[in-house]
Amino acid sequence: MDRVIEITELALRDAHQSLIATRLGIEDMIGACEDLDKAGYWSIECWGGATYDACIRFLNEDPWVRLRTFKELMPNTPLQMLLRGQNLLGYRHYQDEVVDRFVQKSAENGIDVFRVFDALNDLRNLERSVQAVKRCGKHAQVAISYTISPIHTTQNFIDQARRLMDMGCDSVCIKDMAALIKPQDAYDLVKGIKESCGNQLRVHLHVHATSGVTMVSLMKACEAGVDGVDTAVSSMSLGPGHNPTESFSEMLANTGFTTRIELPRVLRVRDHFAKVLPRYSEFLSTFTGVDTDIFMSQIPGGMLSNMESQLKQQGAADRIHEVMEEIPLVKKDTGYVPLVTPTSQIVGTQAVLNILMGRYKVVTGEFADLMLGYYGAAPGERNPEVVERARQHAKKDPIDCRPADLLEPEWGKLRAEALPLEGCDGSDEDVLTYALFPQVAPKFFAARHEGPRNLGRDPVTGASETVVPEGHPGRITGPVTYTVTLSGQQHKVTVAPYGQE
Amino acid sequence: MDRVIEITELALRDAHQSLIATRLGIEDMIGACEDLDKAGYWSIECWGGATYDACIRFLNEDPWVRLRTFKELMPNTPLQMLLRGQNLLGYRHYQDEVVDRFVQKSAENGIDVFRVFDALNDLRNLERSVQAVKRCGKHAQVAISYTISPIHTTQNFIDQARRLMDMGCDSVCIKDMAALIKPQDAYDLVKGIKESCGNQLRVHLHVHATSGVTMVSLMKACEAGVDGVDTAVSSMSLGPGHNPTESFSEMLANTGFTTRIELPRVLRVRDHFAKVLPRYSEFLSTFTGVDTDIFMSQIPGGMLSNMESQLKQQGAADRIHEVMEEIPLVKKDTGYVPLVTPTSQIVGTQAVLNILMGRYKVVTGEFADLMLGYYGAAPGERNPEVVERARQHAKKDPIDCRPADLLEPEWGKLRAEALPLEGCDGSDEDVLTYALFPQVAPKFFAARHEGPRNLGRDPVTGASETVVPEGHPGRITGPVTYTVTLSGQQHKVTVAPYGQE
Repeated sequence: MDRVIEITELALRDAHQSLIATRLGIEDMIGACEDLDKAGYWSIECWGGATYDACIRFLNEDPWVRLRTFKELMPNTPLQMLLRGQNLLGYRHYQDEVVDRFVQKSAENGIDVFRVFDALNDLRNLERSVQAVKRCGKHAQVAISYTISPIHTTQNFIDQARRLMDMGCDSVCIKDMAALIKPQDAYDLVKGIKESCGNQLRVHLHVHATSGVTMVSLMKACEAGVDGVDTAVSSMSLGPGHNPTESFSEMLANTGFTTRIELPRVLRVRDHFAKVLPRYSEFLSTFTGVDTDIFMSQIPGGMLSNMESQLKQQGAADRIHEVMEEIPLVKKDTGYVPLVTPTSQIVGTQAVLNILMGRYKVVTGEFADLMLGYYGAAPGERNPEVVERARQHAKKDPIDCRPADLLEPEWGKLRAEALPLEGCDGSDEDVLTYALFPQVAPKFFAARHEGPRNLGRDPVTGASETVVPEGHPGRITGPVTYTVTLSGQQHKVTVAPYGQE
Repeated sequence: MDRVIEITELALRDAHQSLIATRLGIEDMIGACEDLDKAGYWSIECWGGATYDACIRFLNEDPWVRLRTFKELMPNTPLQMLLRGQNLLGYRHYQDEVVDRFVQKSAENGIDVFRVFDALNDLRNLERSVQAVKRCGKHAQVAISYTISPIHTTQNFIDQARRLMDMGCDSVCIKDMAALIKPQDAYDLVKGIKESCGNQLRVHLHVHATSGVTMVSLMKACEAGVDGVDTAVSSMSLGPGHNPTESFSEMLANTGFTTRIELPRVLRVRDHFAKVLPRYSEFLSTFTGVDTDIFMSQIPGGMLSNMESQLKQQGAADRIHEVMEEIPLVKKDTGYVPLVTPTSQIVGTQAVLNILMGRYKVVTGEFADLMLGYYGAAPGERNPEVVERARQHAKKDPIDCRPADLLEPEWGKLRAEALPLEGCDGSDEDVLTYALFPQVAPKFFAARHEGPRNLGRDPVTGASETVVPEGHPGRITGPVTYTVTLSGQQHKVTVAPYGQE
């Protein structure tokens, strides 16, 4: 009997978040739902992460309506979300009652599997949401942010998994968002966790495909006893995204492992998205190959492009290599935080400032908070000199309690602020939308009645969109240079009346 | 001590043949040669396959000059070529003396490793070139065309390898041009050959990346004892091409295997081609993802696109699925020939004709030759009814001897025909060029003095090239639709004077 490796399909959440900046609209997903639901997945990740933000900011979609739509169309397969622990889906810590209510509403509206993570792997930032999930009778999975550092040893991660099991998690997921995990490391880590935690604890592995080695890491994880892996249908895979579902399933032939997915159904899902994706070419990541710089730098690709654009804005694009050398030093000063949202942005921005202004001459508020414990406990020892510098800059003292313990009850206040907003329907769901995105929610509530705004475009229309300079004469008499955006890349196209080139 | 897995770098031959239709010009390779030579590769594949044809047909480059240039710039690493056995680099069988002379001249001009293959895996088509290589004191590697069929069992391939060793080959290569080989099959095959042939025979594995599973097959091949693998630097990898060199090397960390390559040098080669490749966007394969149809159809991607364009020309594009179902039947009738140049084209075209005209109502001359033994012995039993049909069509009797045995000595005649051609320099190399490509050689000899024609273009120039309709007025007064070719894809762009859209 072959051992079954379960699959979580990422097409509806992380895949489009990674490939087209989370812009996929609900109407472009609906057509795939029946096949997704019946294909034999362990779960379908379809909510959370950046999708909530994108729904209200860009798509005029109510994320709760989206979730209920999924539940209606996919009643047979567990629906999964990504939750940033005490941050929920927002960018600050929330008081426990807000966490409880958010989890409860998510469960009521359709989420079956909650994948919870914390950038710092601080258990105290995870505990409350895990308890809330358990109270709803749902599956609580904690994702351990994977990173490479002198203190992030295999044993360290194994101990962490053990503590998560003791906390009551139903499963752990190793979350390798930067595609850093190499085959043998994946093997050792999965093997170690399985040996330490036994069959009580499911182990899943989430990898991106970016470095070109992680499909092999998935294979070695199977050999080590992994219970589930994350993949995305091939038309929504690779580059900054994930490994292709069909290829994963097929590669297991004769290995003693198998999956439960039905290939013909998955191929139909693939064909659906193969047609849909070109409609979002404007948002498509320009990077589609393999990034092998990460083997030298260990800096996630997305972080690098962020820093590049920051440097460019400062007219200092040529200093990227200095910044790349600064990052490991800044990371070390923080006590080796994993580089994942939001720590990747915080560390990256500080590294840019260090190079442009002098080391820690200017410290961002976020970096100061990170150094002073306001995001949680660091994995290792923080540099005390930099902590002191942060204290001076921020005029705050370091803390070592759980950050959310400093918060006063806030649900009543949030509710009082949300309810009077134009278009707010008074539901807890709306209050949560306001709680998570207080700047964006008012505009969304007011415009919600207009219905979803689909940002996909017919490829030909998209291709012919040109920017005509303002104040351009009504008749073209000389060469005109247009900027044509195709597949996310800008091209200068000069069009001249015939004979004038 | 880690076991060393040797690497053959494909950037200079199969990679650009797969990705940009073999159009890479010598001047765009020169800058990478020093790093390639010093990076620690076992060999650098840089000649043969379709490059000879492309040199004289498209690039006005003398392939022999190209080879000598490589030898001068890369004196330390063995240079490798791909040779189609008794077909050499042409499209027919050559008489043995031509084979001997071609191999001898290739060795003299710089080839150290000859990878020889035959589409049918007919040993009699390989013997003469292997002997010629050994006589020159060079490395004779025979590549076994990998395919999946009822008669192509693991044991069948192992027996083939054993026979190749007895023939005096220095190494065998499993050549999986369609990315069909799954991890466990790769493991079993390599393990079986190593066990059967011992350490006397090196085993290499050549895979394409197209199906998304072959990076894992490379890993399993390492575990099974493979001696060498083929990869391409990441900027010249994936899609219809190969797995990325840096990723392969890095994934071996802590596995007990290692490579001899120096990552910083390989990254410089990568950076070189990352700049070069966009200059060839016009030729770039539009397919860059993973093709998972092959798991159901086992039809190589390149073959499929050929048949699609044949059907389109006949206004029958909608019949592709019938053709796809016909292919396995035609393949079976041929005695399960592997689908690789030239059999993939022959079988594909016959399948198209079967669907359009009725099964075997029309038979191409090439298909008749294949059925009648003029390409060599079939791997399995041919369908006797189809053999009879072929005999009637071609008015030729089937043969069972080695096809080249039917050929009269031809070197003198080829030489006599080549020498009078304008621009022919009288060398054996020129006679060989004429022998291989009698239609193209005369034009090439005449134009050779003009020097290499580089088909790369600055991306911006390429992007702004528009097709202006002939007889277009000198002044644009209404909307004009241009066809803009970008990255090999055509887009219709309509430009209207401002206010007219």
